[in-house]
Amino acid sequence: MDLLHNISQLATCPVNGKQEEIGSISDAALVWEFGKILWVGKENALPDTYRDALPHDCGGRLVIPGLIDCHTHLCFGGWRGNEFAQRIEGKSYLEIAAAGGGIASTVKATRESSFDVLKQKAAGLLEEMLALGVTTVECKSGYGLDYDNEIKQLEVYAALQQEQPLDLVPTFLGAHIIPPEFTERRDDYIELLTNKLLPEIKRRELAEFCDCYIDEGAYTVSEGRKILQAAHALGFGLKIHAEQLTHTGAASLAAELGAVSAEHLERITVKDHKLLADAGTVAVSLPLASMYLKDDYIDARGLIEAGVAVAVATDLNPGSSPSGHLPLAMLQACLNQAMTPAEVLKGATSIAAKAIGRENLIGSLLAGYQADITIIDAKDINHWMYHFRANACAAVIKNGVWQHNRL
Amino acid sequence: MDLLHNISQLATCPVNGKQEEIGSISDAALVWEFGKILWVGKENALPDTYRDALPHDCGGRLVIPGLIDCHTHLCFGGWRGNEFAQRIEGKSYLEIAAAGGGIASTVKATRESSFDVLKQKAAGLLEEMLALGVTTVECKSGYGLDYDNEIKQLEVYAALQQEQPLDLVPTFLGAHIIPPEFTERRDDYIELLTNKLLPEIKRRELAEFCDCYIDEGAYTVSEGRKILQAAHALGFGLKIHAEQLTHTGAASLAAELGAVSAEHLERITVKDHKLLADAGTVAVSLPLASMYLKDDYIDARGLIEAGVAVAVATDLNPGSSPSGHLPLAMLQACLNQAMTPAEVLKGATSIAAKAIGRENLIGSLLAGYQADITIIDAKDINHWMYHFRANACAAVIKNGVWQHNRL
Repeated sequence: MDLLHNISQLATCPVNGKQEEIGSISDAALVWEFGKILWVGKENALPDTYRDALPHDCGGRLVIPGLIDCHTHLCFGGWRGNEFAQRIEGKSYLEIAAAGGGIASTVKATRESSFDVLKQKAAGLLEEMLALGVTTVECKSGYGLDYDNEIKQLEVYAALQQEQPLDLVPTFLGAHIIPPEFTERRDDYIELLTNKLLPEIKRRELAEFCDCYIDEGAYTVSEGRKILQAAHALGFGLKIHAEQLTHTGAASLAAELGAVSAEHLERITVKDHKLLADAGTVAVSLPLASMYLKDDYIDARGLIEAGVAVAVATDLNPGSSPSGHLPLAMLQACLNQAMTPAEVLKGATSIAAKAIGRENLIGSLLAGYQADITIIDAKDINHWMYHFRANACAAVIKNGVWQHNRL
Repeated sequence: MDLLHNISQLATCPVNGKQEEIGSISDAALVWEFGKILWVGKENALPDTYRDALPHDCGGRLVIPGLIDCHTHLCFGGWRGNEFAQRIEGKSYLEIAAAGGGIASTVKATRESSFDVLKQKAAGLLEEMLALGVTTVECKSGYGLDYDNEIKQLEVYAALQQEQPLDLVPTFLGAHIIPPEFTERRDDYIELLTNKLLPEIKRRELAEFCDCYIDEGAYTVSEGRKILQAAHALGFGLKIHAEQLTHTGAASLAAELGAVSAEHLERITVKDHKLLADAGTVAVSLPLASMYLKDDYIDARGLIEAGVAVAVATDLNPGSSPSGHLPLAMLQACLNQAMTPAEVLKGATSIAAKAIGRENLIGSLLAGYQADITIIDAKDINHWMYHFRANACAAVIKNGVWQHNRL
């Protein structure tokens, strides 16, 4: 039995209640055993039962639930740093794509990369995320775009789940773009997804969720409905990349199908807010994509005021958001989505947990929850969010086990 | 004698030439001895003279001059994280100031902090900057705003220069704002600056530069001219906080007085570009201040095209830019100032050196320069800038001595 004490602020982050209600406790303590939280409260109210727990002095720091990055494209071949410089010099996305760049180049590099190379690269990225205080990562396929390579990406996630401490939540995103070789026969690819890949992935339990990118240049709403309905029938949870570049009606589809999350939403309308609120669908905001693309940021205030829970994630990928730095995404959400540090914290903990269907297991520091705990070298969340440092994380406990301890 | 080899890209960053000309060498090597660079070139062209140097394998990484943060307010009491949350909630700067917040609260906290407390805090910030690859830091006074407390801040810098490895370049910014107790008698404070503080600081060699914040709510152009002329007569180099919130003519004054740098410049006009270019005054851009304040970014393209050298610095301070993360400032300069990674790199090395009058000593990896060297875990500068990580710095050599070595 272990005890964290001398905590200046502890945020329990209950999933229910308003987005700003983080359940803050000052001068707090927390007890855990066998990977489960037993007790959280004021240090001076610690029950006698826990007096013998092994104490760990947090030095007056902030304690929060382990961070959850609920939207990443973790496994990919290659990088695209040169395109970054080209975009600054004024080259358009279309020019870059015509010269063999863009997402097609990542598909090519992912197909050409071996399982081991992809796994090692993703493992390195996860290690850096853990050091920042992230304990759970949703990770999508979608750069294979054929039978073998979509399975290869998901197998990388399955192997990494066994080999490193973070919990991974795999999502099948075979419907990311139409693969180059199927542009003239889209229906054949959709049939491959629904009739072959989805059943096989279900059989082998390689993914919990099925995602679909609905946008101009990607899938139509009716194609998305077909793919997601097939996934739903097989028992997958549903996610949608919705309303990023154009408004297509994808958020409305997310509500209609009862998707756990609608992600991106830069082009969402006020009408959609209510639909998502009524459906209990989480809006996953991806501020680093807006930052890197110099695009509009999501209307987080409108969503929150309509009663939609807004998560914050990195969108880690080699093109539009080449960073797995969740605290930077959180800072950008404060600055550019007008979310307070408290709202952002819940967006990267309990609400992010809801976006991956695990809100009863992780994302909150409450008795019975998994002991995923991050200790931040700041006295409160306002200071943490505003004073941007390379890494303010002082220690991470994952499933009850210390992973980094710089206390 | 030491040798760095197996370098995928080395940027020499000569101070002359266009901003984009970073003197890139692929498959490079570098030799140094007694804190001075002896030789830089292609590894396969290493002269026999250096064959016995102690080799250090850079593992195919990027090697750049030690980064220079040429604009910081390093020494201050307290922090202002709560104001950050208040601003997001919609409180105006004036409301916050009326409630005792804003810069006046930092002045109060700095005056109330002991020399030791200020020194320890600044030392912690410097340590984090060094870990990021920063080897020289300009640091301003300006939160004391009275005789004893301005001297106290500069004494902190003098002490830190002796106790830690980074080079500090102290700047006297007694003319930051008009101190609260002098609002009704501005001239008396200016007389304190020019007749007492400047001569004493010169006598004790506590600062190399004199800076003045010319803006609405701070000093007028004619007050600034008076202060800076007095400083110039005493032999100080000149810097100006210019054209940040309003256009006052401060950039033109910088050119007129031959200041080494004009800093901020969010409100600079095209007319000013030519004046700065002709005077050889460096434009110091502070993208993190724009990011945190949600203000306009500087017109870097206009300045560069007019022939002005544009530096990039953090503006580290507890209000408008509470971060000493220079690589984040550099990323924001790429994204929001339309500067290429190459231009930004020169802006944080040789051009930053020029902004502190040390361009013949540091900021370039050329024979004869001080051996301030940063090794980045990326194969080239484009990849480094685009893939934002907590800390991509793999090792730092300061004045020939290894400071961090994670190779």
